[in-house]
Amino acid sequence: MLKKPATTEIPIHELIAHRWSPRAFDPERMVPREQLLALLEAARWAPSCRGEEPWRFLIFDKQTQPQAWEKALNCLEDSNQKWAQRAPVLILATIVNIFEHNDSPNRWAAYDCGAACENLCLQAVHLGLITHQMGGFKLAKTHELLGLPVEVTCMSMIALGYQADPQILEGDYLTRELAQRNRKPLGEQFFEAEWERPFKI
Amino acid sequence: MLKKPATTEIPIHELIAHRWSPRAFDPERMVPREQLLALLEAARWAPSCRGEEPWRFLIFDKQTQPQAWEKALNCLEDSNQKWAQRAPVLILATIVNIFEHNDSPNRWAAYDCGAACENLCLQAVHLGLITHQMGGFKLAKTHELLGLPVEVTCMSMIALGYQADPQILEGDYLTRELAQRNRKPLGEQFFEAEWERPFKI
Repeated sequence: MLKKPATTEIPIHELIAHRWSPRAFDPERMVPREQLLALLEAARWAPSCRGEEPWRFLIFDKQTQPQAWEKALNCLEDSNQKWAQRAPVLILATIVNIFEHNDSPNRWAAYDCGAACENLCLQAVHLGLITHQMGGFKLAKTHELLGLPVEVTCMSMIALGYQADPQILEGDYLTRELAQRNRKPLGEQFFEAEWERPFKI
Repeated sequence: MLKKPATTEIPIHELIAHRWSPRAFDPERMVPREQLLALLEAARWAPSCRGEEPWRFLIFDKQTQPQAWEKALNCLEDSNQKWAQRAPVLILATIVNIFEHNDSPNRWAAYDCGAACENLCLQAVHLGLITHQMGGFKLAKTHELLGLPVEVTCMSMIALGYQADPQILEGDYLTRELAQRNRKPLGEQFFEAEWERPFKI
């Protein structure tokens, strides 16, 4: 299994350090239903503004619903279909961004959904699974093909499965799979006491 | 330490199960700088659309910058100030929702920021710290008092510190601190193959 742990100034929890977004999925190895449930429970227990739980997840398991899975795959941009076609599970993460208690806009719906998806991805690391979140899918087609209500906003499609040998990938995809992970310097985004003053120990 | 693990149909990773949002902070116990750095590193290594890292965090540590911390506290709604005044660290999570590579809107900025904040909160659980994310703060006042650029959108203020005896809280805050955590039934938000068809094993 190809590991690409985060490079940090100080150790962080292994679950967080070892999450990354591979593209080499093993098409032969399905995800056990119990593990899928554990991932959804992890997402379900994310925090949300006013406990609204504004996320709605739609799960496409090739093993049990191959036709629906195929539809979900077709919603992706072609460049993503190339590798995501090997992922045995696709999960569409959506939000309803109107508060239930007063029908006013919930400006934290996407933020909360991001937290729920991160929980899902970290639980996947824990279970030896890999995930890759995609923003690259066709919005109108997704609504139409999957029969989503108008009030729903699609945020991401998540490919889920087991890791395969990176050599299953070709060209640029292989290069990116093997490349080192990186982040901007910490001080460019983490400020102390005042804007753009880099955080330092 | 008061623990309120998530009630799940199947076990989930303890880090995720044990994260919750207490209000009883110990005002006497500061957060070591190394631990603060570990939290920021955890946030920094969250995934983001196109690797944009659209989050910007502003850290207010009462120990090192008491005046700035006081300013941040004053940005909160009064109801939050009542208990958050005991938190030794306040962290403002913001986003820039324009893509750097082409100046177009980044509709995943809030989603990515939510993931980064979840990483931060989970790393806090790992280090024996507690966090409480708040949406309740005054937007215009926050921009003005903290001198934020116009292109920045504030998402949440996170109270960080060590847990105190819940009895430090009064009235409704105490009741909520001791109450059981809950979530909507899984099938109401996690669907399989088609919209509103509850996920089942």
